[in-house]
Amino acid sequence: MYIPTFDDVQAAEHRIAYYIRETPVLTSAFLNRLTSADLFFKCENFQKAGAFKVRGASNAVFSLRNDQLERGVATHSSGNHALSLSYAAGCRGIPCTVVMPRTAPQAKKDAVIGYGGRIVECEPSTSSREATFAEVVKETGADFVHPYNDPRVIAGQATCSKELLRQVEGLEAIVAPIGGGGMISGTCLTLSNLAPDVKIYAAEPEQADDAARSLRAGYIIADDAPVTVADGLKVPLKELTWHFVSNHVSDILTVSETEIIEAMVLIWKIMKIVVEPSSAVTLASILKNPETFAGKRVGIILTGGNVDLDSLPWMNR
Amino acid sequence: MYIPTFDDVQAAEHRIAYYIRETPVLTSAFLNRLTSADLFFKCENFQKAGAFKVRGASNAVFSLRNDQLERGVATHSSGNHALSLSYAAGCRGIPCTVVMPRTAPQAKKDAVIGYGGRIVECEPSTSSREATFAEVVKETGADFVHPYNDPRVIAGQATCSKELLRQVEGLEAIVAPIGGGGMISGTCLTLSNLAPDVKIYAAEPEQADDAARSLRAGYIIADDAPVTVADGLKVPLKELTWHFVSNHVSDILTVSETEIIEAMVLIWKIMKIVVEPSSAVTLASILKNPETFAGKRVGIILTGGNVDLDSLPWMNR
Repeated sequence: MYIPTFDDVQAAEHRIAYYIRETPVLTSAFLNRLTSADLFFKCENFQKAGAFKVRGASNAVFSLRNDQLERGVATHSSGNHALSLSYAAGCRGIPCTVVMPRTAPQAKKDAVIGYGGRIVECEPSTSSREATFAEVVKETGADFVHPYNDPRVIAGQATCSKELLRQVEGLEAIVAPIGGGGMISGTCLTLSNLAPDVKIYAAEPEQADDAARSLRAGYIIADDAPVTVADGLKVPLKELTWHFVSNHVSDILTVSETEIIEAMVLIWKIMKIVVEPSSAVTLASILKNPETFAGKRVGIILTGGNVDLDSLPWMNR
Repeated sequence: MYIPTFDDVQAAEHRIAYYIRETPVLTSAFLNRLTSADLFFKCENFQKAGAFKVRGASNAVFSLRNDQLERGVATHSSGNHALSLSYAAGCRGIPCTVVMPRTAPQAKKDAVIGYGGRIVECEPSTSSREATFAEVVKETGADFVHPYNDPRVIAGQATCSKELLRQVEGLEAIVAPIGGGGMISGTCLTLSNLAPDVKIYAAEPEQADDAARSLRAGYIIADDAPVTVADGLKVPLKELTWHFVSNHVSDILTVSETEIIEAMVLIWKIMKIVVEPSSAVTLASILKNPETFAGKRVGIILTGGNVDLDSLPWMNR
C-alpha cells in the first residue's frame, strides 16, 4: 500500500490546476451569529462537475503514462466520482467507462454521457457490480480509479484544504463530511504537513455512522447499504483512508437525518447556494456541538452541489 | 424632480460601503458554450438581505440628516425593498415602518420583523395601501423611501454596475431585469458616465411588458396587476426611472413564463446558486436572442435570491 505524501499533493496541485477551479470561500454574518463561531465555507459545489471529486479524478487521469492513455480509465460509481472521472478523461481525450447500477438516476447517467463517458450497466448488487467491472477491465485494459482508496485520488482531494489554508488565515478547525474518507484523508495529509495544530473534524449521518464506530473500535467497520439522505456518505472506509482517519482525525460527529435537512435548508436560504445533503452534515454537526466550535475560526468543506431539483428532501417530509 | 448625478453615485458608494457587500462575479463554461458569449454574473443574490435593493435603501437611510433620524423611514412594499429598508434602518438604529398587504407571505413579514422593521398591514388594494401609508406618514413623520422612484435609491443601485465595471474588463453589454426600473436606471447612470459604449439591455416578462410597451410608445404605460412568476417585476415605471430608461436603454427584451422558469432552473442546476425568478429573466433573454449577444462579453445582474424553498415554480407546472 503506497501512502501518498505531501510531495504528491504539491505535484497534484500543479498537474490539475488547469482542469479545476479555485473555488471561493463564502461567509455568512447570520450563520456566524447563530453558531458564535467564524465560519468559512469552501464552496466545492462551485467546482467543475459540481463536486470536489474532480480534484482526485483529474490527478489520477493526468498521472497516467502515455502508454496507458489508449486503454483509458474505468470506475464504478453512481455519484460525483462518475461525473468527475468522465470530465477529467474528457479533458485528456481518453476513454472512460463507468459501471453503474441500471437503477441509478437518469440525470446522473445523462451527465456522465454529457462529459463523454461510457456507461456499462449492472444490477444493483455488489456481486453484479464486481463481475461487470471485472469484465470491463478485462475487455478494455483500463486503469481503475477507485473513488477514494487510491493515493492519486487522495493527493488530489488534498489540494482543496491547501487552497483553503491559502485563502483563510488563522483557521483553528476544519469540518468535512466523511463517507469513504477521500476528502478527509486529503485534509489530514495537507494539515498534518502545513498546519498540524488545526483540528480536523469529520461529520457523518447517524444512519451511516460506520466511520464513527470504526474510530471508536480501532478497526474498519463496514455497513451493508445504510440508508441516508446524504447519499454520498454511504460507502465504508478502506485501508488507505483508514490510515489517515485513524491517525489524524480529532473526532467524528454524527447528525440525524432531520438535522442534515434543516442545515441544508439553512445553507440554501441564508447563503443562496445549492449544496447536496452530504455537504450539509458539516453545518449540522457544528449546530449540534456549539461548545466545540464557539469562538473559533472554522473551515467547512461544502463538498458538492449536484442535487435533483425536482425532488428536494424537505419536500418529502 | 431631482435627477441623480454620477457625483451622487460616488457619494453613495462611500456612504454604504460598510453596510453592503461587494458581491462576487461568477462565470460558467457551460453557459458560455450554450450562448456563444462570455457571461459575467454579478451575484446580488449574495447581497445583504438577499438582493441589490439594500444598496439603494442604505443610501437613502444613511443620507438622512440627524434631525430626521428619530422619525425614521417608511415605505410600502411586500418584497425585497421592505427587507432592505428594514435592514438599513436597523444598521443606523432608526425606526422603519413598512406597509404591507395582509396577504403578503408570512416569510417576508417574518424577515422584516427579524431585521427590526415594524409592519402595518393594509388590504391588498391600491386604495387601502395609499390610505394606510398616508396614515403612517402622518403619525410618524417618517421619511418616505420609495422602492425605485427616489434619486437616493437610484444612486445606490448605480453602485452595483460601478463595482461590476471594476471587476470585469472589456464588457460590451449589460443585461438587467426591469420592473419599476431602479436597477436599470442606476446602471444607465453609471454606464453613461464611465462606459457609454456598453449597451444596456433590460429584460422583462412578456406578461408584465409595460416597460417594453412604454419604450415603443414613448411614454409611461402602467398595467394594473400583471401576473408573472417574476414577482419583483410587476410594478410600473415612474417619471425618474422613465428618464433613464427612455434616454439610455438599447432595448427591452421580453420572455415567456416558461422561458423564465427554464432559465432559473439552468442557473440553479449549472451554477449551484439560488436566484429569484426575477433574476432569471436576464439569462432567458440572452438564450432567446442569441444573435444579439454571441461573441460578446456580457454582464448579467442577478438581482436577488429570496425565494420560498417550499414552493418553487418548476414544482407547480
